[in-house]
Parts: sequence; C-alpha cells; structure tokens
Amino acid sequence: MKPSFEPDTLPTETLASGPDRRRFLKAGLAVTGAALTGSVRASPAPWMTRPGAPLSNYGQPSPHERAVIRWVAANADAPGNGVSWTPLERLEGIVTPSGLHFERHHNGVPQIDPAIHRLVVHGLVGKASSFGIDDLLRYPMISRLGFIECGGNSNAGWHQEPMQVPAGNLHGLASCSEWTGVPLATVLEECGLRPNAKWLIAEGADAAAMNVSIPLEKALDDAVLALYQNGERLRPENGYPLRLILPGWEGVTHVKWLHRLQLAEQPAMARNETAKYTELLPSGQSRQFSFVMEAKSLITRPSAGQSLPGPGLHPISGLAWSGRGTIRRVEVSTDGGRTWRDAMLDSPVLPQCFTRFRLPWHWDGAPAVLKSRATDETGYIQPERQTLIAERGRHGYFHFNAIVSWAVAVDGSISHVYA
Amino acid sequence: MKPSFEPDTLPTETLASGPDRRRFLKAGLAVTGAALTGSVRASPAPWMTRPGAPLSNYGQPSPHERAVIRWVAANADAPGNGVSWTPLERLEGIVTPSGLHFERHHNGVPQIDPAIHRLVVHGLVGKASSFGIDDLLRYPMISRLGFIECGGNSNAGWHQEPMQVPAGNLHGLASCSEWTGVPLATVLEECGLRPNAKWLIAEGADAAAMNVSIPLEKALDDAVLALYQNGERLRPENGYPLRLILPGWEGVTHVKWLHRLQLAEQPAMARNETAKYTELLPSGQSRQFSFVMEAKSLITRPSAGQSLPGPGLHPISGLAWSGRGTIRRVEVSTDGGRTWRDAMLDSPVLPQCFTRFRLPWHWDGAPAVLKSRATDETGYIQPERQTLIAERGRHGYFHFNAIVSWAVAVDGSISHVYA
Repeated sequence: MKPSFEPDTLPTETLASGPDRRRFLKAGLAVTGAALTGSVRASPAPWMTRPGAPLSNYGQPSPHERAVIRWVAANADAPGNGVSWTPLERLEGIVTPSGLHFERHHNGVPQIDPAIHRLVVHGLVGKASSFGIDDLLRYPMISRLGFIECGGNSNAGWHQEPMQVPAGNLHGLASCSEWTGVPLATVLEECGLRPNAKWLIAEGADAAAMNVSIPLEKALDDAVLALYQNGERLRPENGYPLRLILPGWEGVTHVKWLHRLQLAEQPAMARNETAKYTELLPSGQSRQFSFVMEAKSLITRPSAGQSLPGPGLHPISGLAWSGRGTIRRVEVSTDGGRTWRDAMLDSPVLPQCFTRFRLPWHWDGAPAVLKSRATDETGYIQPERQTLIAERGRHGYFHFNAIVSWAVAVDGSISHVYA
Repeated sequence: MKPSFEPDTLPTETLASGPDRRRFLKAGLAVTGAALTGSVRASPAPWMTRPGAPLSNYGQPSPHERAVIRWVAANADAPGNGVSWTPLERLEGIVTPSGLHFERHHNGVPQIDPAIHRLVVHGLVGKASSFGIDDLLRYPMISRLGFIECGGNSNAGWHQEPMQVPAGNLHGLASCSEWTGVPLATVLEECGLRPNAKWLIAEGADAAAMNVSIPLEKALDDAVLALYQNGERLRPENGYPLRLILPGWEGVTHVKWLHRLQLAEQPAMARNETAKYTELLPSGQSRQFSFVMEAKSLITRPSAGQSLPGPGLHPISGLAWSGRGTIRRVEVSTDGGRTWRDAMLDSPVLPQCFTRFRLPWHWDGAPAVLKSRATDETGYIQPERQTLIAERGRHGYFHFNAIVSWAVAVDGSISHVYA
C-alpha cells in the first residue's frame, strides 16, 4: 500500500532537532526520494529554501486543486440560465465549501445591494410590512446544518442507459451548508396571519422573478430567512442577501434573492409547480407539490470514472440524506445487492443534513458492483431503480432517489450501471 | 423594530402572480421605498431588469462583503511572519469559512506540489516509512468538526488596559472547520512503535521547518492527518496538502505542511516549547507543554466597536468551546456578573468544537456590562480575569481564557472593559 525503506538507511544519529536539522532534511529526503523514484535528491524541497507567500485577507484553494470545480451546463445564449454541479466525488465530510455549492438559476445571478434590498410581506396578513436586511439582522437567529437538493437532481437516472459521467455530474445538484437566519415564523407572527391564509407565495428578486407556493404549515414549522451560509453572509449565487430555507424540501422552494412573501388562500400555480415539477404517474394521475426529498445515498469514492490501482484495501465513502429527518442506517453492498453490510456513520448525524458513511473494503480483483442503501428515521428505505420506475412510470424527471450502482471491472475501472 | 405600512396602501388586487406581476413590482416597491425614504421609486430594482451574472466554476463572496476579511498583522520585512485574525464579530454559526480561517505563519505559506510532497515517519519505529499524498488518500478516513485556537489567542487580555479593537482582532486566532483525514494511529501502528517511543516530533515543510513535540498518547488517541477542510482539500495557509490535527490542543501543535514525524524518547525542546509557550508562574515554577485549550466563551454580537441603535430587543450571540470536550452550559450576564441566565445552544453541540449560544436581550437604555461564562463537560467553569491573573501571574502571554466583558453606554456604543 505504500513505499517504505529500512530504518538503517536513515541517518538516525542526525535526526534530532537542532543544528543538524538541515543535514537531516537533505539526507532524509534524499533517501525517501531514492526509494520512490530511483534518483537521489541532493537538496530539500524547493518550498523549504525560500520564504513562502504573505498572509492574506481572504484565502483561496491551492493552484494544484484547480480541477475541483462546479461543472457548468448553461444556455450558451443566456449563460445565467442553467445549472452547475457540486463535484461530490472530489469532496469529503458533510460541509460543501460555499464556492462549490450547486447552482440552478433561471436568469443569472443578480448583484444585489443589501442597503436597498427589502423583503415585503403582504396579502392575508394583519399588517403588510417590509423589512430591510439591517432590520432582519436584529431578529433572533438560529443556525442549522442542512442539505439543499434540486428536485431535478439525478434525473439522468430515468434515462434508458446509465450515463457515464463522474458522480457529481449526475448527483451533484445537492450540497450541504450551515445556514443561519431568522425563523420565518417570527416574522409571520409579527405581521399577523388572517384565518384564511393557507399558502405562502415566495418570489426572488432575480430578473426571472422566480416564484413558488409553500403550504403555510411548513412556513410556520422550520422555515428560515437565511442571511449566512457557512459562517459568512450568503454567496451571491446562493441568494445574497436573503434566501428562504425549507429544511428537507426540494431546492426550487428555497427561493434565492427573496424579496416578496404573499400570504394567500390558494397556491399561485406558478411555472415551477405546473409546467415543471408536476409529473404524470402510471395511474393516470399526476404528482404535484411533491416537496419532500426522500431518503437517498450515494457512494462518492470509489465512483464512476475513477479507477482502483489494484486489489487491496479501498475504503468506501459516501453521502446519505433524507428530507424527512435523520439517517438511521446506510448499508453497502459490494456484490450487486446480494449481501449488505452496515456502514459507519461519521458524527454528527443531523436531520435533513448530509451524513457521511464509510466502510473499509478489500477488493479481491474480481468484478464487483457497489451499491449503498439509506434508511431514514421514518423507516423509509431507499428503493432499487426498478421499484422506483414501477411506482413512478416512465414520465419521471424529478425526485430520482433510487439506489446507485457502480461496477468495478477487473482492470479497476469503474462505470455507472443499472444492476 | 421595522418600518411597516398599512395593508390598504398595497394594491392587493394586483398581487397575484401572472400578467400583473410586473405592475405589482412597480407599485409594491414604490410603496415600500416611499415608506422608508420619503421618495417614490417608479421602477423595480435594477437587478430585476436585466439578466444576472453567468454560472461559475468557483464562487466568491459578494462585492458588498469586501470588508469581511482577516485582519493581518505581519512583519513588514517578512510578510509571511505574522498572524491574521478571523473576524468573529462578522460571522455566525459555528463553521468558519476556509477563506477566513485564522493564520499564524513563521516564514510564509509554502506552495507545495502534492505530487512531490511526502510524509516521513522515522525514529523509534519498527519500520521507517514515507507516504505520498496519494498513498494517504487510500487510507480509511474520518471527518470531524472542530476548532483550532492559537495558544496566543486573546493575549491582549493580559494587558493592563482593555484593548479597544473588534472582538475578532482580540479573540479571532480561533476558527472552526470540518477536518477529514487519516487517523494518525493507523499510520503509526502500521510503522510499528518501539517500546521506548514516548514522544512524536512533528515538523512542517515550510521554510521555518516549524516543529513541536507531542506525547505519544495523544497521537494514538484522536490525532488526524488531515487532507480536507470544509469538504475540499486543505487551503494552502492551513497546511496543504497535509496538516496534523490534535483535537482541543493549542494551534501550534496542529503542524501545517506536515512532512516529518519522528518517534523519540524525549521531546525535541524546540523553540515553540521552550523560548515560547513556557511561562513563569507566581510560584516560581514554569508551565510547559500546556497543550489543552481550556473552556472559553465570547459574545460576538453585540461586541466592542459595534453600537446599538437604541433601546429594544438585541439578540446576544456568541461562541463557546473547550479543548477538554463538550460545552455543557453557557451563562450570560447583562449586569456585569451580578446575575446570570442560561443561553440557548444551537445544535450540534460537539466535543472540541465551536458551540453557538444565543440569548434574546431587551436593552432598557441604561449602561450595561455583558459577559458570557462557559462550563464544559468536566465541570470546569471559565474564570473571571482576576482569578486567572491570580493563578497565572503577570508573566502570562499564552492561554488567556478569562470571561470577556463588553460595556454598553447610554448612547449604545460598546467598549471592551475589565469588569
């Protein structure tokens, strides 16, 4: 698993710190380099021979990580209409760095001046009101770690043939951040709700004025007017200066650049709840207002497009999440679903939040099919793909949450399969 | 607390979505603008009248947040020798964005090629070994959210007079991230430890070759060879490509750019455990190897340099942490310590991790002194400043963890006081 060298090839008598340190650096690195490459390096690494870069006001990733980016698919004629995927297969843990949080915009990212932006609350309220960002910053806040997943995430899973792209390009319209803001219930209660108020119509201040309708119970339950993401103020592409957070619900309801909340008796029947996000079922009926993202999981490493250098230990690492609450269990199969083993879950395991699972796996070099299967606190078990299709039919586009299968070939290459 | 307007000034009959939406935008924003500034805006916000910015590969903060930066204090002749503080008073939640994680460097930030960098483990081991980054990426990993605090954080607390700077510039050599990496125990056990190995001497690959000595028990307990920070690979200023994480211990032991671990019978007696980090006590004895960061808390908002616009509701928000485990309780006083109330703790509350506490506070306009006091799972209670000084004397520089006091004057201005 690793190159090594014998202890007696290291000049141990010179290894103590002190005046001989530089001699060790030369000798030690030379031996190491030699064992690895066959050549002897006579000097320490170049970055130890000169001062490094100055301190900085705001840090950036290493130039060596330039390949770790959101993969953008946008309309060439309207480059603000499209999506960008979080490269889940390149990341670890449960926090998505804000710079890599997925995007879905209809008309680009507005650059909003927070000194001018206001949130208007009107309609079936006792007192229509408007709030500046500075007003909202004075309300009691709450922080929570949670995922946002686009309702259209993983939609290639409905395709007849398994798409061969990295895991993030299939399933990376899902990201997880710590969101901090004002409980929406506080603001609604202050405005006063009329008895016939049943829906909340939320609208963004982008040029598309994207809007959706939300049942009032959710708005009063755990919705948050988010001002901060991962500690700092929201990023522009995540709704700066104000975003609606609806824990566990599909991404389109987490309205970005939020500027209007209208209390109403009926939903708006907006584009994203009629022309989109409504789906014909095999029964002839349609699914509409299918807000909750059901339990899902995904092995991120190893995954499609990666390859194993050879038989041996290959830790399996992945993500699980459920819009209905906490992940209770993740099982992993390395034989295409014939047998399953419980994966370990890294702490913390939080409701409506990414959960990192892990399982050490010893690959014997034979073909293998890797799967993961999540169970949430309601007892719901992530379905196999054929089960999901039997239930939802062939008109599906949204809410694909079936088990994902990666096939490992004898040469170690990994591909996406339906198995 | 907020401007508002009467419902009948809003053209409610045109508020439904559909063809009248744009009319609403004009009318609604006009009314809102009028109520706020006395002038009527006849058009929607400019960012709603044109497409926004395209999708992007890696996001950045809003240009309106340019003031939220690390405050740098570096040697003008050697700009890589110094510190930069996390602006804690501008942040929320428990995650520090990686771009704002504090820095302490001795000779700048090396730009390391991860394809060349190696970790050498040698000394009192069964088999001296070296590991490339690709090797380490194949070991089973673990993720944990945790703080790192410089042992010299808050050292202005020892000054005779309270320093008047923002909270982050006093206490912001502390940050919190999700770290993912390989348990150090795995690697040490693979190398094999000789019976007389008692200390681990860790060295970085910066031009200062910064090194420290760590008792072997800690190395085998919960130390991590971190490769990822907040989901993505480490930032350069946080040790890319490899950093030693020692949960709850002073920052200097979390060696960045880690390239060498020497197992030894005795500590190295390096500069940062002799000339620094050793302190004379009133008893005449010295404190040395004072690794653990004791429980501490801090109100971040409101805090020194901020001001309250007037009497009314002002939520108190702050951070608590302990190197000995989990925060059990945070109490807040608004009367200089005469009476205390329990603050609420946001979930999750994790060991050796920032914990966000909150308490709503109604300011009556009279002078007030705000304090917070943390208790950890061991029962240790954060001390008052005079208690800490009585114990540690006047030669202190490191490990200042006393209660911090902010005085609110009748005009709402807030200053740092010893009270």
